[in-house]
Amino acid sequence: MPVGLLLQGRTDERSPETNGDALRHLDALFHPRSIAVVGASDDPNRIGGVPLSLMIERGYSGRLIPVNPKYERVQGLPAFPSLAAAGGPIDIAIVAVPAAALAATLEDAIAAGVKALVVFSSGFAEVDAAGRDMQQQVTRRAREAGIRLLGPNCLGMMSFRHNVFATFSPAPRAGANKVGNIAIVSQSGAFGAFAFSLARSRDLGMSYWMTTGNESDVEFADCVQWLAADRDTQVILGYMEGCRDGDKLKRALEAARAAGKRVVITKVGRTELGSAAAASHTAALTGEDAVYDALFRQYGVWRANTVEELFTVGYAASVCPLPASSRTGVLTVSGGVGVLMADEASTAGLDLAEMPLAAQAALLREIPFAGPRNPVDITGQTVTVPGLLERTLASMLGHGDEQAGYDMVVFFPAAALLGASVAQRIVDDLIAAHTRHPDKPLVVTGLMQPAYREVFRKAGVAVIDDPSAAMRALGALAFFADAAKRPPPLGATAVVPSAISLAGKSYTEHEALQQLAAAGVPVVQSRLAATAAEAAQAAQRIGFPVVVKLCSPDITHKSEVGGVRLNLQDAGAVEAAFNDILTKARQAAPHARIDGVLVAPMVKGGVECILGVHTDPVFGPVVMFGLGGILVEAMRDVTFRLAPIDAAEARSMIDSIRARRVLDGMRGAPPSDVDALAESIARLSHFAASNKAGLQSVDINPFLVLPYGQGAIALDAVLVTEPAHTPSTSTPRGTP
Amino acid sequence: MPVGLLLQGRTDERSPETNGDALRHLDALFHPRSIAVVGASDDPNRIGGVPLSLMIERGYSGRLIPVNPKYERVQGLPAFPSLAAAGGPIDIAIVAVPAAALAATLEDAIAAGVKALVVFSSGFAEVDAAGRDMQQQVTRRAREAGIRLLGPNCLGMMSFRHNVFATFSPAPRAGANKVGNIAIVSQSGAFGAFAFSLARSRDLGMSYWMTTGNESDVEFADCVQWLAADRDTQVILGYMEGCRDGDKLKRALEAARAAGKRVVITKVGRTELGSAAAASHTAALTGEDAVYDALFRQYGVWRANTVEELFTVGYAASVCPLPASSRTGVLTVSGGVGVLMADEASTAGLDLAEMPLAAQAALLREIPFAGPRNPVDITGQTVTVPGLLERTLASMLGHGDEQAGYDMVVFFPAAALLGASVAQRIVDDLIAAHTRHPDKPLVVTGLMQPAYREVFRKAGVAVIDDPSAAMRALGALAFFADAAKRPPPLGATAVVPSAISLAGKSYTEHEALQQLAAAGVPVVQSRLAATAAEAAQAAQRIGFPVVVKLCSPDITHKSEVGGVRLNLQDAGAVEAAFNDILTKARQAAPHARIDGVLVAPMVKGGVECILGVHTDPVFGPVVMFGLGGILVEAMRDVTFRLAPIDAAEARSMIDSIRARRVLDGMRGAPPSDVDALAESIARLSHFAASNKAGLQSVDINPFLVLPYGQGAIALDAVLVTEPAHTPSTSTPRGTP
Repeated sequence: MPVGLLLQGRTDERSPETNGDALRHLDALFHPRSIAVVGASDDPNRIGGVPLSLMIERGYSGRLIPVNPKYERVQGLPAFPSLAAAGGPIDIAIVAVPAAALAATLEDAIAAGVKALVVFSSGFAEVDAAGRDMQQQVTRRAREAGIRLLGPNCLGMMSFRHNVFATFSPAPRAGANKVGNIAIVSQSGAFGAFAFSLARSRDLGMSYWMTTGNESDVEFADCVQWLAADRDTQVILGYMEGCRDGDKLKRALEAARAAGKRVVITKVGRTELGSAAAASHTAALTGEDAVYDALFRQYGVWRANTVEELFTVGYAASVCPLPASSRTGVLTVSGGVGVLMADEASTAGLDLAEMPLAAQAALLREIPFAGPRNPVDITGQTVTVPGLLERTLASMLGHGDEQAGYDMVVFFPAAALLGASVAQRIVDDLIAAHTRHPDKPLVVTGLMQPAYREVFRKAGVAVIDDPSAAMRALGALAFFADAAKRPPPLGATAVVPSAISLAGKSYTEHEALQQLAAAGVPVVQSRLAATAAEAAQAAQRIGFPVVVKLCSPDITHKSEVGGVRLNLQDAGAVEAAFNDILTKARQAAPHARIDGVLVAPMVKGGVECILGVHTDPVFGPVVMFGLGGILVEAMRDVTFRLAPIDAAEARSMIDSIRARRVLDGMRGAPPSDVDALAESIARLSHFAASNKAGLQSVDINPFLVLPYGQGAIALDAVLVTEPAHTPSTSTPRGTP
Repeated sequence: MPVGLLLQGRTDERSPETNGDALRHLDALFHPRSIAVVGASDDPNRIGGVPLSLMIERGYSGRLIPVNPKYERVQGLPAFPSLAAAGGPIDIAIVAVPAAALAATLEDAIAAGVKALVVFSSGFAEVDAAGRDMQQQVTRRAREAGIRLLGPNCLGMMSFRHNVFATFSPAPRAGANKVGNIAIVSQSGAFGAFAFSLARSRDLGMSYWMTTGNESDVEFADCVQWLAADRDTQVILGYMEGCRDGDKLKRALEAARAAGKRVVITKVGRTELGSAAAASHTAALTGEDAVYDALFRQYGVWRANTVEELFTVGYAASVCPLPASSRTGVLTVSGGVGVLMADEASTAGLDLAEMPLAAQAALLREIPFAGPRNPVDITGQTVTVPGLLERTLASMLGHGDEQAGYDMVVFFPAAALLGASVAQRIVDDLIAAHTRHPDKPLVVTGLMQPAYREVFRKAGVAVIDDPSAAMRALGALAFFADAAKRPPPLGATAVVPSAISLAGKSYTEHEALQQLAAAGVPVVQSRLAATAAEAAQAAQRIGFPVVVKLCSPDITHKSEVGGVRLNLQDAGAVEAAFNDILTKARQAAPHARIDGVLVAPMVKGGVECILGVHTDPVFGPVVMFGLGGILVEAMRDVTFRLAPIDAAEARSMIDSIRARRVLDGMRGAPPSDVDALAESIARLSHFAASNKAGLQSVDINPFLVLPYGQGAIALDAVLVTEPAHTPSTSTPRGTP
């Protein structure tokens, strides 16, 4: 029984790059009109018996073709000795034979014109090098023949609307699930089976379920890309352990975003401890976790850190419309729980704008001890004052002078929906309100009789048990709405590569600053001086005071060899500094190439920041921003985005650091020129994106942000390139 | 119908200070042997009918006494015109009459020798000033007569083991709940009713349920104090909105901790937004949120930020023993979910120590693709390899050379406990393992057939659906275990007040430093100089370079008036600085008293920190620690404890800031003397505690922590005192 539960073998060669090829035959794979099972078994509990028995039982309407040379009939259906012998078109062949037999099955499939294989078999790259070789050979042959391959070592896929059960998981047998708009895509079979069972136990309606196993051909990203175009799917719940092809994943996520799908992904390996466990358990190619955070943020994916969050957000996204804004009304019968929800709203970034004063006054006339602002606390009078709930919902959802016009409303009725007498009236009022405002998410949280859940769901009202979880789900809906309105991330469209590669060259600080200046990043105007006299002359042109710094491509950390002198006031001081710096440098590094010194103006004031780029092996160049200084380093208060980005996205980076207030001007300091800072980050990101082939990293430290209107300026830069003739992103981290 | 759902009137005078008085008659209140209902009604749905009908129906075994002059019998029981007319001892009288009738009812109760009143009636301090006056009068009269009062404006209390339903909440009527070891104490009736219903829906076993309403006499803290001594209660779930008497709450929480109870509290008003909502909705006396964090941390209370967390942690604490340490084994059938749990373990502070190498090797011999370290991933083979689960549990829980001896184990079987065939064997293995190690928490997470929940619970195995929530619950158990082992917080025992009050005095920097030095805080040795010549002389004694600072009790921010000069190298510079500082100070503040200047050595190196004290109106002096500098201010990276604390607790403060690494020495800096830092924080906290009567705040900024072995030193201090003759903690924040 194959149970390589983690993707221990997702190490195959890259799939074809173009979209057309990547999607080839995925329609046949995920929406098959005829399904063969190679290794078909009469026993409904065996790996070759489960899919047949499930599809017969649930009424799959296409042709089912058992293949097994030993039998004439399997599970009551006529069986064939081979795929070729079955005749007629075969969309997919499920392969439930030992690994060693896969190659022969593939030849049979080619002969029979099969479009895609779903390979349950294990014993490939997840086991050892021989298995990896075998997997690579089969995959190559399948590609040549134009056959797609899901797996190997996967649990298969299910399509609930069409009763396709191309899986050997026993989970579906435990009971039928609801058909709906949620697709589940999992790189792990075990997680996939768990997720399926959990979705069923929560009564979520599902469209597709896909597990990708070793991903020798069809990857997680392919599944997302295909689901992006699927009309029956509104929500994609993903479980990821790693990614091999960052560009493909970006394309898929952008396709989903552009199509209005809501994508929620749990990506494991969040903390350092978690990453250690991942590295020991899997050869999946995990990028840095912060890079995934950036990717998901930019591509409109909600990252769920727990299974609970994955399903709660997925449920809300499946039931609710997307709100016009994050303006949220909280309606409660308990002031205390209202406060609890307000607490969470703040964390979730929701805007709890106050009710209009007239509406507050009107409510207080009815209920003197109500809380009229927002949260709106209508107290236990909810049900005793006729029409109170209806009127309050109207003034929260309606648009008028005395109405709040919230774009989302959440209602906490405590335990009132348990009581038989009053519950139905509350339910009716809520559904009526939602019918009048069908474009606004309405969520009920708290306890209720189970029957009401279904009533609410049918009416498009979401039910989320925990009040805090309900607020987080609304935060996710606001995030999706915001993402849907944004233009595509710049990285999703093609970036024009620079004509000249940086690879194989080494850059002094002076040269690095020149490169950045050419890319539009403001840099300090420094002059290179080869002699003491040249240095003094340069200083005179620049104007005192000046800074003098060693210039050598071989000495990166110049301050450690005494190579930096600040605040020099006259020509004599500059000449002395030149001589001293060169003496010390020659002592410290006798064989280093020394070009002389850089003379630069002494720039004072402003806020020290750090800008950087590092090239992720999977996702390419990533731009970084943080404030400078030791404390920020200690607190890791930095933020990342995949390059390139525009100034608006750079602005969101600036706004996301914890020490943001420093740029507003603290303790009497003037506000900083964040416009110039954002523009510089954006330009650096474009430089990185267009030079990604040759670039390893850039550090601009310090990058000085001056008071508003005065701009910003790079004072120092280190540019590290790839060795010559090595493609930059071809060696994914973690490859054995 | 009284529905003042929030404690709008918790503004009464303080309750008696001594423990004996505070607990007087609480036994009668919470464990009554005879119960009268004043305003008893025949209608089981009316406020005066609900408690009677519930107690008759559920079989309360004590005497039930309906009081209503209009009827001879109520709900089949003989009724009396008054409490006095009923005869015989009456432990509690439930008061279900209008507010105006409470005073007369109280006189009747005094005449009848009633020990405690449970007052449902609303219309008191939660409504208006007249109501507050009425509430105060009644409370004072009750105190004089030695009668305890729960409420007014409360939902009452329930004792499930004795079938006491002194409540008019309809919630109990919706179905019986399990009796167990969890007590619920809520300041909000609405939240209390919700919590009761939620506990019942989760099948939690409850001992007591108490709501405190306006808290005119019996407070939240009294309930906790009483439950601390209750043998039937192991877990106290609290819901708080505010606190009037910090010392009483400290005593109660310490009593609970010392008695081994696990206390979990949701205190609303966590974020700024939340606090705003609280301020508008309630007159409850909320202290600063960080102060509650400190209080809960020091007194071993787990603060739950969501209802979900309150109940999940409460459930785990009710089912599981406390672990010997945080060494936790994670057992999984899915590597991915294992990583997810490892992620959460890191956040929860759990120690996922690796399995012994021999045990890893043994597991790999059985299952080559298992994950043997920790998380231990035994894959889908869990059930197909005979004895695998049993052996793995033994090697994780057992103590031996080849066994890990984890103090807690959590198991994720994915959906395996849904399957009929294999589930029972898994259940048996788990229960057998727990039977062998009954002192170690064992938690199962994931999906299962509902019947197994009860089987597990009876065996002492906890079931928590979400894997991440399970990890957090284990983190809470480790927290409780740690708290139970600690000595009582210093603040829980009496602090000897300083003989001389600081109140009404004002202190210059020089005097403030002298006060702190006397308290054992290391301070810079500065000298006061009234003339330029004295200043130069002082500098010569101290040794150059020196710092010269304005010394005036009336000018707190001396650097803003040019009153600070650093790094002066000789006597001339000191004299010039003296003259300049005094000139500028007299210009800036012509009427300020100026004592001269302080001359101090120029101390260099070390890490700048800030130490502080502020006196919270409810909880008294709170000590603060953070790193110095603008970025830390921007990032609010500071931590608090209630004073006094010892050096070990101060060490935990130091370890809890985000920028902790700075003190380890970054970028080549030496590690700092954190021992001296911790000792100084502790001494400052003792100074604050023994001077709390006169102290408003202390700021020591900068407090310089030198390299290890060289100590630490306060360079500047500001001490702000209370005005004379005003008791320091008598004006709780938020009092109208």
